[in-house]
Amino acid sequence: MATQPVSDVVINRLPLYLRMLEFLEKAGKTITSSQELSECLDMSSAQIRKDLSYFGEFGKQGTGYNVAFLQGQLRQILHVDRAWNVILVGAGDLGRALAHYQGFAAQGFRLVAIFDNAPKKIGLTVGALTVQGMTELPRCVRDRKLQIAILAVPAVAAQAVADELVELGIRAILNYAPITLSVPPEVKVYYIDPVVGLQSMTYYL
Amino acid sequence: MATQPVSDVVINRLPLYLRMLEFLEKAGKTITSSQELSECLDMSSAQIRKDLSYFGEFGKQGTGYNVAFLQGQLRQILHVDRAWNVILVGAGDLGRALAHYQGFAAQGFRLVAIFDNAPKKIGLTVGALTVQGMTELPRCVRDRKLQIAILAVPAVAAQAVADELVELGIRAILNYAPITLSVPPEVKVYYIDPVVGLQSMTYYL
Repeated sequence: MATQPVSDVVINRLPLYLRMLEFLEKAGKTITSSQELSECLDMSSAQIRKDLSYFGEFGKQGTGYNVAFLQGQLRQILHVDRAWNVILVGAGDLGRALAHYQGFAAQGFRLVAIFDNAPKKIGLTVGALTVQGMTELPRCVRDRKLQIAILAVPAVAAQAVADELVELGIRAILNYAPITLSVPPEVKVYYIDPVVGLQSMTYYL
Repeated sequence: MATQPVSDVVINRLPLYLRMLEFLEKAGKTITSSQELSECLDMSSAQIRKDLSYFGEFGKQGTGYNVAFLQGQLRQILHVDRAWNVILVGAGDLGRALAHYQGFAAQGFRLVAIFDNAPKKIGLTVGALTVQGMTELPRCVRDRKLQIAILAVPAVAAQAVADELVELGIRAILNYAPITLSVPPEVKVYYIDPVVGLQSMTYYL
């Protein structure tokens, strides 16, 4: 653990380092360096060394980082050295795409339930799950003490659903709805917004 | 325009400021401040002032920023004061969800064609478009001089499709495939990776 509070910006970069280390391991590498990571990730090696230094000493000057060891450490730091159960709210096109996405389970995020409020969607099978009505949501979240939800509902419904999720004890929301959610400070929201991505690339065109 | 090169990290934040200004305008605000923006965006007001200062002087000490004016300036800086034509490669669940997403057109990104290589998907209607085979891709991109593509194909196919897009002249790729793409330095890639989002939130749980 870090000995001092670390900014969100640093925390948000750790999964990128983890992803790159997994990639290097698959490519057969056992040792890497902040220099190599920086070239792959398009950021400075000094930034990477500084980010990692908040959490300890993971490499030796001149010998670099052990790929497997640093991966393990990052997984511990990010609390992804365990499995997490996740619910999905919204069973439209996007919700169904997310339910079929293999990347969640591969990284220890297990989708355990899908909810929607549209009668014609309730009861449908999506992957290995059956879409449940929103009335089933409270019991599911409370009984299983769930903390993570993926929100894939229309923008107009998103704040009301987020309010309900927070009330039930959800502490992390992966939000696909294109609005800024208002949540208490103890709740984290990560925004997936493709327009932000497009707009940050057109700068260069 | 900036008088000096500005880092990608700063550029990536400008769309967030733009999004927040649009939100404030809808809420009826005409004036805002770096302090107000910082509270909404969970970053320091000094950071926001510094980011904006690369591009000019947009507010007066003590009077704040004019919401409409700063929006217009950010749109010019990001080159989103015009419409952009965009193609989508991949017509699976995710591709279809993206094709139906209203947020692109609302921000001036007009989806003009969808491609897939699966015979059973070619010819299907998705929203206002018909899925075309990959053999139609070169003519579409070249004739219309397109620069932006959204990549929603499986991970195993992503690099080959990216190579083809780059070869055809695409300079910005919004990548949903969970792999790191290898592209020339003049091509920008923005990664949409929900696992990175989840992993950066579990740190706090």
